[in-house]
Amino acid sequence: MRLLDCTIRDGGLVNNWDFSEDFVRRVYLALSQAGVDYMEIGYKNSPNLVESKGVGPWRFCDDQYLKEVIPEKTNTKLSAIVDVGRVDIEEVLPAEESHLDLIRVACYLKDVEKGLELVKTFNRLGYETTLNIMAVSNSMEHELIEALGKINTSPVNVAYIVDSFGSLYNRDFEYLIDKFKKHAPDKEFGIHAHNNLQMAFSNTILGAQQGVQFLDCSIYGMGRAAGNCPTELLLGYLKNPKYEIRPVLEVLEQLFIPLREKFEWGYIIPYAITGQLNEHPRSGMALRNSENKNQFAAFHDKMTTVETMDS
Amino acid sequence: MRLLDCTIRDGGLVNNWDFSEDFVRRVYLALSQAGVDYMEIGYKNSPNLVESKGVGPWRFCDDQYLKEVIPEKTNTKLSAIVDVGRVDIEEVLPAEESHLDLIRVACYLKDVEKGLELVKTFNRLGYETTLNIMAVSNSMEHELIEALGKINTSPVNVAYIVDSFGSLYNRDFEYLIDKFKKHAPDKEFGIHAHNNLQMAFSNTILGAQQGVQFLDCSIYGMGRAAGNCPTELLLGYLKNPKYEIRPVLEVLEQLFIPLREKFEWGYIIPYAITGQLNEHPRSGMALRNSENKNQFAAFHDKMTTVETMDS
Repeated sequence: MRLLDCTIRDGGLVNNWDFSEDFVRRVYLALSQAGVDYMEIGYKNSPNLVESKGVGPWRFCDDQYLKEVIPEKTNTKLSAIVDVGRVDIEEVLPAEESHLDLIRVACYLKDVEKGLELVKTFNRLGYETTLNIMAVSNSMEHELIEALGKINTSPVNVAYIVDSFGSLYNRDFEYLIDKFKKHAPDKEFGIHAHNNLQMAFSNTILGAQQGVQFLDCSIYGMGRAAGNCPTELLLGYLKNPKYEIRPVLEVLEQLFIPLREKFEWGYIIPYAITGQLNEHPRSGMALRNSENKNQFAAFHDKMTTVETMDS
Repeated sequence: MRLLDCTIRDGGLVNNWDFSEDFVRRVYLALSQAGVDYMEIGYKNSPNLVESKGVGPWRFCDDQYLKEVIPEKTNTKLSAIVDVGRVDIEEVLPAEESHLDLIRVACYLKDVEKGLELVKTFNRLGYETTLNIMAVSNSMEHELIEALGKINTSPVNVAYIVDSFGSLYNRDFEYLIDKFKKHAPDKEFGIHAHNNLQMAFSNTILGAQQGVQFLDCSIYGMGRAAGNCPTELLLGYLKNPKYEIRPVLEVLEQLFIPLREKFEWGYIIPYAITGQLNEHPRSGMALRNSENKNQFAAFHDKMTTVETMDS
């Protein structure tokens, strides 16, 4: 089993990747001391294909810059994620010239073939790879089964179940893990959970019990909207003596408590509502950025009325 | 299945039961509109047996006072809890003269016989009863089995599993539910979970799936230390059409968001640490009331060093 901490990557969606070099370096050292297997240090999207103005460097993970910030690598491997259509493979060095060990490709189910094309490229360049299927709660079963068949014959190392909307309960993850095992039996699996319904940690340890090998987490749960499975809870739960919670508690109190005063993430009611409705959290994020940020009942009315209008 | 909202009772441990009459009335109406089956409106401890100075009226639930605050009862029944040794049965009216429908007796495993004596008294007075076994995570199996045998032959209606320290995972609750079913087969069961490890909701819905009949919850999770299973998440999860989330969202935004600015509860790291260590949260509460409230690593050191010194 391996832990992948995605604090800087998913947390960057909260603060536009505005983490200082010192901040990122301290997180890397803490995760290393804690025995965390991978740190996802950002996106490897191209500055030419996504908005780059006012966006911190962890959105792009320039290889030279990574080497400056982290002069010495530890046992904790580095990972970056790319979105289908937003990466320029000409900008990606061969793995042996990069600090990155793992590149994860995120895509919706409909784009699995595009995602697997990217996987092949990164695989040829020498990287470990994952394919992260987003919004899996909104997929039709026959499409999922077809996609898993393609994944199983691809060179990808790990297939990830991504609960983008934070709407899944234990029984849903159990169902999906069974499907993944059945239709992509030759692959390892991963879980990336969101905490809209306070289920992220519970779903992640359910995955661990069911043999899922890659568990995503983030310090203090930092991540978009409701955030992720907290790294400190996973470290406290796992019995493997290689994991230590203390280094993470240290950066948590030094870096993340002050940060949480400036930016919000976690269990916030509009995200619970979008999770219950199996909806993208963007409407909740818009509410929280408005004057009506605490008008939960009206938000609930709006979200449930739209469904009727769509019929 | 029945929901029991204990916001005023367990939340009272956060603010010394300093809820206004208007506040409690609005919570009662909201829970009624939401279809919640029981509202636990406080403790029924005796002012002569617990500290009463500076403590709000919901610590004692005087019958006359309850009738003034809630002139008209709805379909939502009222409940109060008592602690073994802190209730004066001379102060408890027969059920037909009281607004209370249910009296819950809380005790540690070692006091089950005392608890069942109280249960018998309340049962004779015409109340529904539960026996809530606190700190069940710290009990020895043979003592638990013996106690469940006594419970099974007593007049109590419901036996509650109480995760006082918020230290239990799904598999622990599953184990305990099996034990309760096996050794007290003639009783209904209940779950009262705490959220130290972000497991309160997950454990509660696990209970529901396993046939547990009474589910405790509180609005916005308000309760001592890490708080409880959020009522709004349970209402969103349950498919029974009698439950409505909207009335709870309304009081949540009007009453509980402002209250949370003044008092803290919920996922706070020292409570995660005490949960991981299966310890009472009191040391975490002391830390949060000190100048060192965010010194998590030092707190972790202290809590784990004590264990060694005890050996």
